[in-house]
Amino acid sequence: MIRASILGGTGYIGGELLRILHFHPQVEFAQVTSRRKVGTPIAEVHPNLRGLVLDKFIHPEELLSCDVLFIALPHGEVANRIETYAEIAQRVIDTSADFRLSNPETYRRWYGKDHPYPEWLSKFVYGLPERNRASLSSANYVSGVGCNATILNLALGPLVDAGWLERAVADIKVGSSEAGAEVRSSSHHPERSGAVRVYSTGDHRHLTEVEQQLGPVPIHLTVTAIEMVRGVHLTAQCFLSTKQDSIDNRLIWGLYRQAYGEEPFVRLVAKRQGLYRYPEPKILVGSNYCDIGFALSEDSNTLVVMAALDNLMKGGAGSAVQCMNVMCGFEERAGLEFPGLHPI
Amino acid sequence: MIRASILGGTGYIGGELLRILHFHPQVEFAQVTSRRKVGTPIAEVHPNLRGLVLDKFIHPEELLSCDVLFIALPHGEVANRIETYAEIAQRVIDTSADFRLSNPETYRRWYGKDHPYPEWLSKFVYGLPERNRASLSSANYVSGVGCNATILNLALGPLVDAGWLERAVADIKVGSSEAGAEVRSSSHHPERSGAVRVYSTGDHRHLTEVEQQLGPVPIHLTVTAIEMVRGVHLTAQCFLSTKQDSIDNRLIWGLYRQAYGEEPFVRLVAKRQGLYRYPEPKILVGSNYCDIGFALSEDSNTLVVMAALDNLMKGGAGSAVQCMNVMCGFEERAGLEFPGLHPI
Amino acid sequence: MIRASILGGTGYIGGELLRILHFHPQVEFAQVTSRRKVGTPIAEVHPNLRGLVLDKFIHPEELLSCDVLFIALPHGEVANRIETYAEIAQRVIDTSADFRLSNPETYRRWYGKDHPYPEWLSKFVYGLPERNRASLSSANYVSGVGCNATILNLALGPLVDAGWLERAVADIKVGSSEAGAEVRSSSHHPERSGAVRVYSTGDHRHLTEVEQQLGPVPIHLTVTAIEMVRGVHLTAQCFLSTKQDSIDNRLIWGLYRQAYGEEPFVRLVAKRQGLYRYPEPKILVGSNYCDIGFALSEDSNTLVVMAALDNLMKGGAGSAVQCMNVMCGFEERAGLEFPGLHPI
Amino acid sequence: MIRASILGGTGYIGGELLRILHFHPQVEFAQVTSRRKVGTPIAEVHPNLRGLVLDKFIHPEELLSCDVLFIALPHGEVANRIETYAEIAQRVIDTSADFRLSNPETYRRWYGKDHPYPEWLSKFVYGLPERNRASLSSANYVSGVGCNATILNLALGPLVDAGWLERAVADIKVGSSEAGAEVRSSSHHPERSGAVRVYSTGDHRHLTEVEQQLGPVPIHLTVTAIEMVRGVHLTAQCFLSTKQDSIDNRLIWGLYRQAYGEEPFVRLVAKRQGLYRYPEPKILVGSNYCDIGFALSEDSNTLVVMAALDNLMKGGAGSAVQCMNVMCGFEERAGLEFPGLHPI
Repeated sequence: MIRASILGGTGYIGGELLRILHFHPQVEFAQVTSRRKVGTPIAEVHPNLRGLVLDKFIHPEELLSCDVLFIALPHGEVANRIETYAEIAQRVIDTSADFRLSNPETYRRWYGKDHPYPEWLSKFVYGLPERNRASLSSANYVSGVGCNATILNLALGPLVDAGWLERAVADIKVGSSEAGAEVRSSSHHPERSGAVRVYSTGDHRHLTEVEQQLGPVPIHLTVTAIEMVRGVHLTAQCFLSTKQDSIDNRLIWGLYRQAYGEEPFVRLVAKRQGLYRYPEPKILVGSNYCDIGFALSEDSNTLVVMAALDNLMKGGAGSAVQCMNVMCGFEERAGLEFPGLHPI
Repeated sequence: MIRASILGGTGYIGGELLRILHFHPQVEFAQVTSRRKVGTPIAEVHPNLRGLVLDKFIHPEELLSCDVLFIALPHGEVANRIETYAEIAQRVIDTSADFRLSNPETYRRWYGKDHPYPEWLSKFVYGLPERNRASLSSANYVSGVGCNATILNLALGPLVDAGWLERAVADIKVGSSEAGAEVRSSSHHPERSGAVRVYSTGDHRHLTEVEQQLGPVPIHLTVTAIEMVRGVHLTAQCFLSTKQDSIDNRLIWGLYRQAYGEEPFVRLVAKRQGLYRYPEPKILVGSNYCDIGFALSEDSNTLVVMAALDNLMKGGAGSAVQCMNVMCGFEERAGLEFPGLHPI
Repeated sequence: MIRASILGGTGYIGGELLRILHFHPQVEFAQVTSRRKVGTPIAEVHPNLRGLVLDKFIHPEELLSCDVLFIALPHGEVANRIETYAEIAQRVIDTSADFRLSNPETYRRWYGKDHPYPEWLSKFVYGLPERNRASLSSANYVSGVGCNATILNLALGPLVDAGWLERAVADIKVGSSEAGAEVRSSSHHPERSGAVRVYSTGDHRHLTEVEQQLGPVPIHLTVTAIEMVRGVHLTAQCFLSTKQDSIDNRLIWGLYRQAYGEEPFVRLVAKRQGLYRYPEPKILVGSNYCDIGFALSEDSNTLVVMAALDNLMKGGAGSAVQCMNVMCGFEERAGLEFPGLHPI
Repeated sequence: MIRASILGGTGYIGGELLRILHFHPQVEFAQVTSRRKVGTPIAEVHPNLRGLVLDKFIHPEELLSCDVLFIALPHGEVANRIETYAEIAQRVIDTSADFRLSNPETYRRWYGKDHPYPEWLSKFVYGLPERNRASLSSANYVSGVGCNATILNLALGPLVDAGWLERAVADIKVGSSEAGAEVRSSSHHPERSGAVRVYSTGDHRHLTEVEQQLGPVPIHLTVTAIEMVRGVHLTAQCFLSTKQDSIDNRLIWGLYRQAYGEEPFVRLVAKRQGLYRYPEPKILVGSNYCDIGFALSEDSNTLVVMAALDNLMKGGAGSAVQCMNVMCGFEERAGLEFPGLHPI
């Protein structure tokens, strides 16, 4: 049993960390902080945990040392204090974007300023077990992953690794929880409800996370907010370098099976028929799975790759706990076995 | 042709007034004010009016005199300045709650303070044509109606007028637009989406509007926010004073037909079968109808009365324009003929 | 470890039984039948179980003996064959309505025909642990519960037991999964989407289940389909027999605490503030909780009781497994610990 | 005034035709047929027309001659009887797919059989006023348009006409009404609700309609069903042939303004800011607009083109009535002025 605490527990990622860790067989849940909600019962903010989590939020300064510290603060609030936080626990998992980019130059380019602790960037391992399991197993500092970057990394990774992908055109559909718990006009229910709202037509900041993992590959990305609370869905037209007559379904299946056949949280979903023959985010709500499917175009050298995940789970809190499992030598599925619901 | 202006045009009621008046055959649309959005194109705030309404918001002080002034300011912002506003137009229709209650004592009781211009309260006619058509036809000052009050007044009015209603237990279901365009945590999409949220278990302020129209009748009211943007739906269990053996379906139909048979915007909907055999708000979205239905209980002396309307239309902007039509001697349906959509 | 099988596993209740039993620590999952889907992989029908449940549906005649047989067939398909089914397992839990009513007269009245095995009716215990735990612990035959009956039984039970409830007016709001997996015109998405559809204004068949548990109490019930897939929500105006000056919040809290303080799956939710101060079905999706809240009316002798549950869980599969836990002497929470999600 | 009838009036396109024609200032509404619903009041099937349309469905054989006959039968039910139908009215507008393709060879390729009246194919003008206005003004036979083809034709047409488009990758998002009024398992509410379901990864039949209008241009198309009843939304990554340094925002605006500046139902929507800065289907529900926007990528020679329309209006009934207006010399906006709603 290890002791884990959460720094910044009022947001949606913080809430999911709480839910998962509460039931994790090897974690003793310690403390949860919130500057604004000191003394408020945790279950008042995360009502699904009523009767289960009875503690109250504490002030960050009351944080005691623990074995693993999860940080779920907003982007930009972690970098400045990383040395302080690192004193609290030997192992730190930061779900913000502050330590995702390993190159200080890249950080400056996208965030418009120097990283306050550039030497720490290289101490962090990017928290995607499917690509960095070996490094994670010996890491003390792990960054979280962007949910949009994760779906691209997992869905396109095998094609890039094989050298087959020349260019991809990707449309990512997201739910409203991706924008977080803070109230804003774009999330006002009468406006957000039923929206089909393209909010990014060239999201290079997220693509930098992808480039860091996969290497340079031309991805043309649009991101569209749709009527959904949780969920990320990817449709990617992939232009392949391999000649048309040499690539077929069996080859694609082989490639993805080799990449993910042993992965506990990646499933290949590409049936010939059935309503759910391709990945769908709704049946993954609450689960840590990333489902990936594909359809080969018959008369052109393109492959449509589809994928789905829950942005708060595999795209956030779930991957973070999976990383903890790898770091601590626990069974990788521990605490993450909820399969999702149907119907929903 | 008359000239009409709107004071406070950025909210949802203001937007619907704009839409209706733009197409109204006897209205020349004049000015729309907004303190915060001076100079902003109106269609930027109300995107459905793109290419149709090309004007910009003006400052309230730029308001020129006109024939009818619609006020769509938040509650509490009208009462203090009514004398100023009344100088702008001979006819004023105020959709806020500031002049709905005719009795200064009642106003003080519910709003916790004296009305600044109590003598004006009696100048206003309550803007519900189905009950106050005669007064409206000669009125210069008309108050808007509360959407919850309107559905109760229309659905229960005939029973109360006939002296049949002893007691009603009403559950009103509402959409998110009822809370207005201002951003708040209760309307944050991830929280509001899919909600079934009882937010009032004894809403006496709204019931005061009902009591003013119908007289004292015991109504036990709950209001529940559900997944819907526009729409109000009422289910009321009505305990009847008439003896069981004397009341039947034919009598109920007769009562409601007498009350509403000639009404342009009240329809009776009570079929034996069919998906839409009772009132449903979704097919009324954008329309000015209030649909009313009922089902007599066989073995108890109760009647279930159901009703539906669009809170921004019959429960707001639509009734206001209908009042204008009555005041100005226009055809009462003018500008209000959109029937709603199916499917939707 | 016991062996459990499911007779009729393609429906929504069957799917939830599968999900729960798959993760249940004391259950070895045996067989799942379907006449129409013999040989089809189970996960094709229940896509959330992909990679977890690898078996295929078998024909009912291939069913081997097991320790507990769950029956999730449509209403009316169980009664005729109960003797056959009872030979398969010592313990049978039937989620259909066929054995819910213990009185053959009552059965005939509501179902319009004689029960084929009336002598079996009394062998079945009504599967609501909160009221029948003692009988369940020694029962071999358990009926499932109706989801609407369950929310009424749990929410109003304490008031009835105390002799305080004179009359209740209840509005129940339900999601589309309550109508089951079979396609029908009322569930066609363009028609069902956004519906606020009163489909019952005097549902006496469901109330019979309530009367059987609580005794005769006048309940005026309406049932309304709203935009929701899973979930049941109750709002009940309760007219109390106790005099107004003697009943207060503390008394109500005391009554409900006494009834449910030790219950693993009933929570009391009645806060003074907060978005989730009263029960909400959405945060219970997938969980086995029934949340109950109340608000006392100040100026009339009425109490508004609210409740929420997931119709496929506490109102179906969840209660059935909870019954199994009681029958088999397992920890009552076993397999049912998923707490629900937020946001959702 | 002309007399118009509808052959096949129970579907969603038929319902919208009814709604539009009922309010059309130059149309006298004649008859509506349905084989299955003979004698049923029309408003029972289209509940938004209650109190407005009082007629009943008649049998097709009772159809009298009229000036314009709209056909809203399922695909495949028109071709065989076109000679009969053409005797009923001088002008026929067929919203099915039976006469959309002008080339009998192309028809055979996609529909797998010979067209029964191939000589009629060339008599029909493809009913897209924005591209075929001149031909329509003298046409007697007009085909309807596919909603997916329409959004592609309108959004990409100017780029293709200018010779700028080398290749497009398009993702089209659609609502559930696109699949029609007939009940099917894929539209069962618990399954369809919240879906993000790629149902086509190479929809060449629809693209044939595009190729017929625009000429050969490589379009890689995916179609995804999302949570929405009405609406089509397009996101297209367009790879341009023009050199990067010569193409800029002004040029794109110029191109689209030239194409659509005078069009009554195409609006250009590409603002720098604002929630609704790009096209959104929800505010077009019930309207005949197609909104088109674009965003130029800074560092690659690509343009993201976005578009939105209501599949039952501009993608179906609305375009059909617009064609009638052109054919009959009416004002092109007549009957089609409803602007859509906000909020919704």
